[in-house]
Amino acid sequence: MQIAILLYDRFTALDAVGPYDVLSHLPGAETIFVAERAGPVVNEVGSLHLTATATLADAPRPDVVVVPGGPGWHARMADGPVRRWLRTADRHSTWTTSVCSGSLLLAGAGLLTGRRATSHWLAVDQLGPLGAVPVAERVVIDGKYVTAAGVSAGLDMAFTLAGRIAGDAVAQAIQLAHEYAPSPPYQAGSPDQAPAEIVAGLRARRDAILY
Amino acid sequence: MQIAILLYDRFTALDAVGPYDVLSHLPGAETIFVAERAGPVVNEVGSLHLTATATLADAPRPDVVVVPGGPGWHARMADGPVRRWLRTADRHSTWTTSVCSGSLLLAGAGLLTGRRATSHWLAVDQLGPLGAVPVAERVVIDGKYVTAAGVSAGLDMAFTLAGRIAGDAVAQAIQLAHEYAPSPPYQAGSPDQAPAEIVAGLRARRDAILY
Repeated sequence: MQIAILLYDRFTALDAVGPYDVLSHLPGAETIFVAERAGPVVNEVGSLHLTATATLADAPRPDVVVVPGGPGWHARMADGPVRRWLRTADRHSTWTTSVCSGSLLLAGAGLLTGRRATSHWLAVDQLGPLGAVPVAERVVIDGKYVTAAGVSAGLDMAFTLAGRIAGDAVAQAIQLAHEYAPSPPYQAGSPDQAPAEIVAGLRARRDAILY
Repeated sequence: MQIAILLYDRFTALDAVGPYDVLSHLPGAETIFVAERAGPVVNEVGSLHLTATATLADAPRPDVVVVPGGPGWHARMADGPVRRWLRTADRHSTWTTSVCSGSLLLAGAGLLTGRRATSHWLAVDQLGPLGAVPVAERVVIDGKYVTAAGVSAGLDMAFTLAGRIAGDAVAQAIQLAHEYAPSPPYQAGSPDQAPAEIVAGLRARRDAILY
């Protein structure tokens, strides 16, 4: 089972590494990071470099596609190598998945047309104009398409997917090995939980966060 | 404020990238990945390479030290460059922190003597012989030392630390931007939550997981 995680300049590191660290522990998984060019790819902060171990051309038929989000998504919305790879890879994939604004790339490639999907809470309203049916849930499954809300939702998506691929016991064993019994010090992780002024502050910075 | 995240061969990616993705968004933060040699460092699975942008010698006085865990910890317990750097960096740090088996490296360097600390649930009993006071909690703060339980606990540690460094509002804004309102599909993330046979299975594989 080949799992291909897409990288591109200005991706969000946790969007890629959260699912990676879960899915790479599935029995029989070969996990690769793919990008237009092999080599280090820089994240949106500019201080993290993750190595693409394969080019898009090296991985035409992955079993599982994982598309992280991050401000760099916008530059890959045009018809180009990333969009073409997404369309090709999706043709034979068992699962096509995304985290955060990664779902906008899937939708932009025409892969979510008429499908229920989610995205970062600041981006989910952009799914409609791209043909998808936006859903404000943390993990959304529609057929073989699994989309996650913002950044950290990729972990919940990955454990959900791990269960679908390998069964509950395997997913639970990975969860226990990762000690994933989250206990955030604040209840501020969604717009309905966070203090109103924090939500307003992020809405005011929406474009700086998304692009 | 310089935040130095230690890398070494066979680290656990999420241990490093979880805290990175939170702390790198603190106002005024300069986050660097440090290792014995600059360049790509491979994780414990063997398929992820994160770039060390600085050598240990380049970063003698970080304000915040983050030590991830991973099976590679054991090879750094001897007196060597990593242990010497930990001792030097800790001398002037504001916060010295760890995730998972990273606390064993801190304890091995003599930094947690008499301090309350935690680690991965399969490793926490090793803290006592190294001079620390083991505590089975998700995030433990004792003075400037902040230790987290296994892998994903690094996220809770990082949000806790973000609040201490920059205040609740900043930490909550980062949490909302990361949509960290976790919702695991299974309740299996700690030995008291997971099914008994899953716990027993991991205990039986303890050495393969830790080393």
